[in-house]
Amino acid sequence: MSKEENNIIVSGMRPTGRLHLGNYHGALKNWVDLQDKYKCYFFVADLHALTTAYDRTENIANNSYEMVIDWLTAGLDSKKCTLFIQSHIPQVSELNLLLGMITPVGWLLRNPSYKEQLTEIFKKKYAGQEANIKIERAEQREGGVVQLSQKVTLAGGLSELTEQELNELAVYGFLGYPVLMATDILIHKASMVPVGQDQVAHLEIARDIVRRFKDIYHSDILVEPKPLLTKVSRVPGLDGRKMSKSYNNTIELGEDVDAVRKKVMTMFTDPNKKRANDPGNPDGCVVFSFHKIYNPDYEKRCAECKAGALGCVQCKKDLFAFMEPEVKEFNEKRKIFSSDRAEIEKLLQGEAKEAMRSAQVTLDEVRKTMRLA
Amino acid sequence: MSKEENNIIVSGMRPTGRLHLGNYHGALKNWVDLQDKYKCYFFVADLHALTTAYDRTENIANNSYEMVIDWLTAGLDSKKCTLFIQSHIPQVSELNLLLGMITPVGWLLRNPSYKEQLTEIFKKKYAGQEANIKIERAEQREGGVVQLSQKVTLAGGLSELTEQELNELAVYGFLGYPVLMATDILIHKASMVPVGQDQVAHLEIARDIVRRFKDIYHSDILVEPKPLLTKVSRVPGLDGRKMSKSYNNTIELGEDVDAVRKKVMTMFTDPNKKRANDPGNPDGCVVFSFHKIYNPDYEKRCAECKAGALGCVQCKKDLFAFMEPEVKEFNEKRKIFSSDRAEIEKLLQGEAKEAMRSAQVTLDEVRKTMRLA
Ligand code: SF4
Ligand code: SF4
Repeated sequence: MSKEENNIIVSGMRPTGRLHLGNYHGALKNWVDLQDKYKCYFFVADLHALTTAYDRTENIANNSYEMVIDWLTAGLDSKKCTLFIQSHIPQVSELNLLLGMITPVGWLLRNPSYKEQLTEIFKKKYAGQEANIKIERAEQREGGVVQLSQKVTLAGGLSELTEQELNELAVYGFLGYPVLMATDILIHKASMVPVGQDQVAHLEIARDIVRRFKDIYHSDILVEPKPLLTKVSRVPGLDGRKMSKSYNNTIELGEDVDAVRKKVMTMFTDPNKKRANDPGNPDGCVVFSFHKIYNPDYEKRCAECKAGALGCVQCKKDLFAFMEPEVKEFNEKRKIFSSDRAEIEKLLQGEAKEAMRSAQVTLDEVRKTMRLA
Repeated sequence: MSKEENNIIVSGMRPTGRLHLGNYHGALKNWVDLQDKYKCYFFVADLHALTTAYDRTENIANNSYEMVIDWLTAGLDSKKCTLFIQSHIPQVSELNLLLGMITPVGWLLRNPSYKEQLTEIFKKKYAGQEANIKIERAEQREGGVVQLSQKVTLAGGLSELTEQELNELAVYGFLGYPVLMATDILIHKASMVPVGQDQVAHLEIARDIVRRFKDIYHSDILVEPKPLLTKVSRVPGLDGRKMSKSYNNTIELGEDVDAVRKKVMTMFTDPNKKRANDPGNPDGCVVFSFHKIYNPDYEKRCAECKAGALGCVQCKKDLFAFMEPEVKEFNEKRKIFSSDRAEIEKLLQGEAKEAMRSAQVTLDEVRKTMRLA
């Protein structure tokens, strides 16, 4: 099969723990499709994980390996794509440093996800204290005078918070997270990046860095990446909220069949459908969201639910019947991949070599353009 | 000769142009002494040069090579020390990224030289406009509320200054300059760093990073460097101000003998000594500052000057007579080193290998401690 080799794709995932079905349907399955169409670089973003969890790194290495095993089991194929662990590629750190030399601090402070993430870390750190941070930036002009000010307000029972603690929330690497993200993309000259709506801002900084590089050095060597908005399936968590480890509402990849069965039986359904022959509303029902993915004839199930043709317990059993073979097959394949850690490490070494080769090309060009010795 | 190998020294110079006698007497000569006593790593800080001159890089590579040639001519010996170009060592960028993950942004904003350097760049950019920047940081507490604010005020005929321009002054790499400096030091586990009084703050951040690393990871692998306050000779510029390219008052290393002679003849002397037999005051006299370095019997000259025993023209001729053989010898040696660029590149390759080996040891330990895969 001939690929559109002109289009290069880069994407990464943070190794924050075991992947769940939300990650699988929301991203990984899409990657498996993309590897057939484009030249793809997929990486375990272990350096990114440090930006918010530098003080909780005990599992980073292990999570990274488990993630690669999930990827391989899901169908990523080192013959079709390049898959690697970010921190194994020294060129990433090198280019990151160089691109950081042309990235205005203002861009990073203005980045909307900086505020969001700061709030996120803050909440985790002060969980249960109903923390409340407000960050405002203001610019004032009076005659020939420009005043920039940034105000961070913390409120809500946090009288014991010290400036020290606040400063620790924002480490230098965390502020520079969009530069690192841009580096990951630009270093392989990605033309397209699969993004969710929430990541468009980061891609924008990558594009801005390319333009600025061009302005300063009159060079076209860096490629402006475009967003690749792909339709992915969003599965909710067992309780209907976003599937997320922190909500404890996930089904993990590789989970035991019986555990999955039990979890399916606890899924939230239409609360108004109390008896088997009550008509139900599949739209807000977690079980139905899964039917849409696993049951080829989910439209029939939709009608049946609305007609009160069956009860939710039966509906869950049916769903599990669709899921079971897939779960079993995944788990069997996964066992094979995970049984030989040495084999995985060997594979990753080869892949890292390929990623380094690609990265070195860009790094050499950038070094030359910036006129380093 | 047996060295105190337990003591490791790291020091660098920015390749901002040709070295002058101020650099030679103020630092380089000291390095030449240090290489006999300690295990030394000396580097051309080309990445540091980018932090303030990312948009004026045309000469970085060339300046880097010329600097190495000056070093070798001055007596640095690759058999006694390791001398390398910073950006040739990928491990520096790698460790820099990792240490940036634990360095609070607050430390960098609070760093006094951040303000100074910002003002410096600003002045260069708006030279002649008598620029005036004020940066204030304030912290306010009211009940459970902490407010941090930072205010940058620009004034003095700068009405055309945009926020864009202000932000460009402070790029991410520039803010992180102390982290990079810490990395240079920590990566070779330097126990001592020769510092001028003005660099003590930077060393303090390096020490703080070591302590923080220890706190977070319960690890002793990084070494707290101590300042090595060495007595160095300060030579003034021709006009009595600090010798500096920007004042156009330098004598460069490698300058032609005749050019040096002419410059010596223009040196500022005691303005009250108008005639040959007027008594003079050697203390404020540039020529005498140089006698102190080049004339073994400078005390006699001091007395002669005070007694009005000779005129300043003669005194300058005498000074040049002392300088001439040294200048000649330097220039001859320099010609040999600079005649074979390939040889220098080969030497630097070997040196870089040694620096990488030392750097990789620390990097591996840090990666392991931070639990990266
Ligand atoms: S019948 Fe099925 S789709 Fe309808 S509410 Fe119950 S579980 Fe959901
Ligand atoms: S005689 Fe020499 S030391 Fe005295 S003022 Fe003149 S130049 Fe300076």
